[in-house]
Amino acid sequence: MRVYQAAAMDASQLAKVTARPRIDFTSILGTVAPIVEDVRSRGDDAVKEYTAKFDRVQLDTVCVPIEELPEPTLDAETAAAFDVAYANISTFHTAQRSPPLEVETMPGVRCRRVARPIGAVGLYVPGGTAVLPSSALMLAVPAAIAGCRTIVLATPPRPDGTITPEVLYCARKAGVTHILKAGGAQAVAAMGWGTASCPKVDKILGPGNQYVTAAKMVLQGSEAMVAIDMPAGPSEVLVVADAGADPTHVAIDLLSQAEHGPDSQAVLVALPGVNIEAVQREVERQCDLLPRAETTRKALSHSCIVQVGSKEEAAEFSNRYAPEHLIVNVEDAESWLPLLDNAGSVFLGRYTPESVGDYASGTNHVLPTYGYARMYSGVSLDSFQKNMTVQSLTWQGLQALGPHVAKMAAVEGLDAHRRAVTLRLGLSSPDKFD
Amino acid sequence: MRVYQAAAMDASQLAKVTARPRIDFTSILGTVAPIVEDVRSRGDDAVKEYTAKFDRVQLDTVCVPIEELPEPTLDAETAAAFDVAYANISTFHTAQRSPPLEVETMPGVRCRRVARPIGAVGLYVPGGTAVLPSSALMLAVPAAIAGCRTIVLATPPRPDGTITPEVLYCARKAGVTHILKAGGAQAVAAMGWGTASCPKVDKILGPGNQYVTAAKMVLQGSEAMVAIDMPAGPSEVLVVADAGADPTHVAIDLLSQAEHGPDSQAVLVALPGVNIEAVQREVERQCDLLPRAETTRKALSHSCIVQVGSKEEAAEFSNRYAPEHLIVNVEDAESWLPLLDNAGSVFLGRYTPESVGDYASGTNHVLPTYGYARMYSGVSLDSFQKNMTVQSLTWQGLQALGPHVAKMAAVEGLDAHRRAVTLRLGLSSPDKFD
Ligand SMILES: [Zn+2]
Ligand SMILES: [Zn+2]
Repeated sequence: MRVYQAAAMDASQLAKVTARPRIDFTSILGTVAPIVEDVRSRGDDAVKEYTAKFDRVQLDTVCVPIEELPEPTLDAETAAAFDVAYANISTFHTAQRSPPLEVETMPGVRCRRVARPIGAVGLYVPGGTAVLPSSALMLAVPAAIAGCRTIVLATPPRPDGTITPEVLYCARKAGVTHILKAGGAQAVAAMGWGTASCPKVDKILGPGNQYVTAAKMVLQGSEAMVAIDMPAGPSEVLVVADAGADPTHVAIDLLSQAEHGPDSQAVLVALPGVNIEAVQREVERQCDLLPRAETTRKALSHSCIVQVGSKEEAAEFSNRYAPEHLIVNVEDAESWLPLLDNAGSVFLGRYTPESVGDYASGTNHVLPTYGYARMYSGVSLDSFQKNMTVQSLTWQGLQALGPHVAKMAAVEGLDAHRRAVTLRLGLSSPDKFD
Repeated sequence: MRVYQAAAMDASQLAKVTARPRIDFTSILGTVAPIVEDVRSRGDDAVKEYTAKFDRVQLDTVCVPIEELPEPTLDAETAAAFDVAYANISTFHTAQRSPPLEVETMPGVRCRRVARPIGAVGLYVPGGTAVLPSSALMLAVPAAIAGCRTIVLATPPRPDGTITPEVLYCARKAGVTHILKAGGAQAVAAMGWGTASCPKVDKILGPGNQYVTAAKMVLQGSEAMVAIDMPAGPSEVLVVADAGADPTHVAIDLLSQAEHGPDSQAVLVALPGVNIEAVQREVERQCDLLPRAETTRKALSHSCIVQVGSKEEAAEFSNRYAPEHLIVNVEDAESWLPLLDNAGSVFLGRYTPESVGDYASGTNHVLPTYGYARMYSGVSLDSFQKNMTVQSLTWQGLQALGPHVAKMAAVEGLDAHRRAVTLRLGLSSPDKFD
């Protein structure tokens, strides 16, 4: 891992160190757009063909109500682990419910803001080499708490055409209504346009590879009228360590990010007194022990260490980088929080590795990557609902507010707006313009 | 206005009546993308050239700190009206602040969700034929309450190169930091990429014509790393009226939507007992009185009346249409709220014309159009901030949760994730893989 001094970096070096690997979506969009269009016009038949081609699975049925699938059986220890994750994720996302907001802005002028569930949502849970039941919980639990009526979960089938039992277990437990046995752009398109077997959804959420991301981008701007959660890039962590941080823990936290894939980013921000060499040695040693050592090493090749002189300098660099995951492995971690502005999720203190948030602390693991933590939030209960505002005026309220509204409408040259007020107040006559 | 019976419509008719006019963005994107690219590479010089070409104004300076512009003078009545609007919008959006969420999901496992302002935002306020100081308030007030450090307001200059005094008055009052004297795609691009005079922003919000919308779409998916508020289409209203609704009020509410532009949509849902002919007559009569009669008549040409047999049928049609503005002009309007799912903003009762929300009740007038109320919220305090989640575990918390996390990481084949927990708990040795 290359080592930089934050204080010695000029603007262009800083820009380079905080930059993410560039993704060229142009060629990916060229591959994905025709698939999306084909699924739009040929529906389930197209999904079956792409699944046969890309996943080498011949599907009988594409999307099925979840109750038609057999109850999965998990060993007791695995079930217990997912049950704990389910409970904590439920607790934290249920707490995100807020009562309707109600304010009387002036006497007789009552304004409210009320949440409503999004009717139908599509959840993408990646498959392939990794199996990700945790993502099923992270997406389906808040969807069910929000009250979404239709919850479609898409995930690539296994070679025998079935769904991973752990994913199915989590999907059932959380309240998914339909399972779409497909992955990639074809799954995203099926949910966005709807097919004979798959309900059309209003919003598509969840992580995925570049093809999934590109398909979401194609649908977002299209006549499918579908929203997406956020733009997506490779996963990333920034670890802040002080002299008291155990080099083994720092190393394994960096590696746990790196093992997500060869594009993963892991950055260490080292406060004064950190033994950089000890950390580097531990990264090497722990990496060699891992079955995924090769992938992990690839990710490490573009990772780096940034040495900083102070807490403030560390926070400034982190805010600039805007990491998806931010581990603050320091003494008195709590005092850092007010300095931190841009991060998807923050892991405070010696006993809070990123793994706990990936699975079971209760926070959501679908988070903004690629620097988008500057302006996007991770998935939350809000992601599955929208807010309507409501106003209701009494006669007195309209008498007090109406003349001001009429004045502003006149300034903007909107006479029907003005007269909607003055006709009600009896200040204008329906027979003539004034 | 054409008249339909809701009960007599088949699925395809219903789809046609609830459909919006199709916007072909392909050709618009072809015009806009080169402008965005040109502003990216040539900055202020390109903005000056496009402003000379499209707005016929020769700019000396493109973007200026607001304190450099002269204090605008408004007559007392106009200033008082905008002051009332400012106060009500401030009150309602300040009430949207929520304290940090904090939950102990398990003993020793503390999860939080904290809001942080988006650093720099760009607000687009349309100009041209209409002058829209109200949009300046609707965008800048919540941006300032959120605590955004840089607030750039873009609006096309008047022929003499200055900004409309009412817009400037509202911008100053609300806390805008920079004024970008430009409109259209060039203004959006300047904010998205940044120029020598214009700060680069993280998010662009605000209504605009098709060129503005297209420029926002181009930037959203680009390396500019910029978020936008929501997709946009023509403005629209759905009015529900019962037998007791005054036909003149119903008519002027439909017309106040229609006067926004020739693409505006106005739909009347008529409960039993509504005198359709009286409403139609009033629409004609009131329209003829308006200075903007011609534009307004164009919008009316694709508007319609839908007759329904019951409250439930009315709510179902409205939810299906998902209007930007929903006026419920009925007896006991309050009882309708639980039936309403999809609308940007709801106007309840006889004394609540859409005009009050457009200007001054306190709710935001930047709302989802085109049916996007099914999954998007209008602009709110949330639009100017993002939420970070935070977790902090005690030693006891990690002891309780850690083994479950390790189990799930093992199921997903993520060994570094597993060992980040087990090494901390002393359940694994740093010297060998287990
Ligand atoms: Zn992870
Ligand atoms: Zn209006």
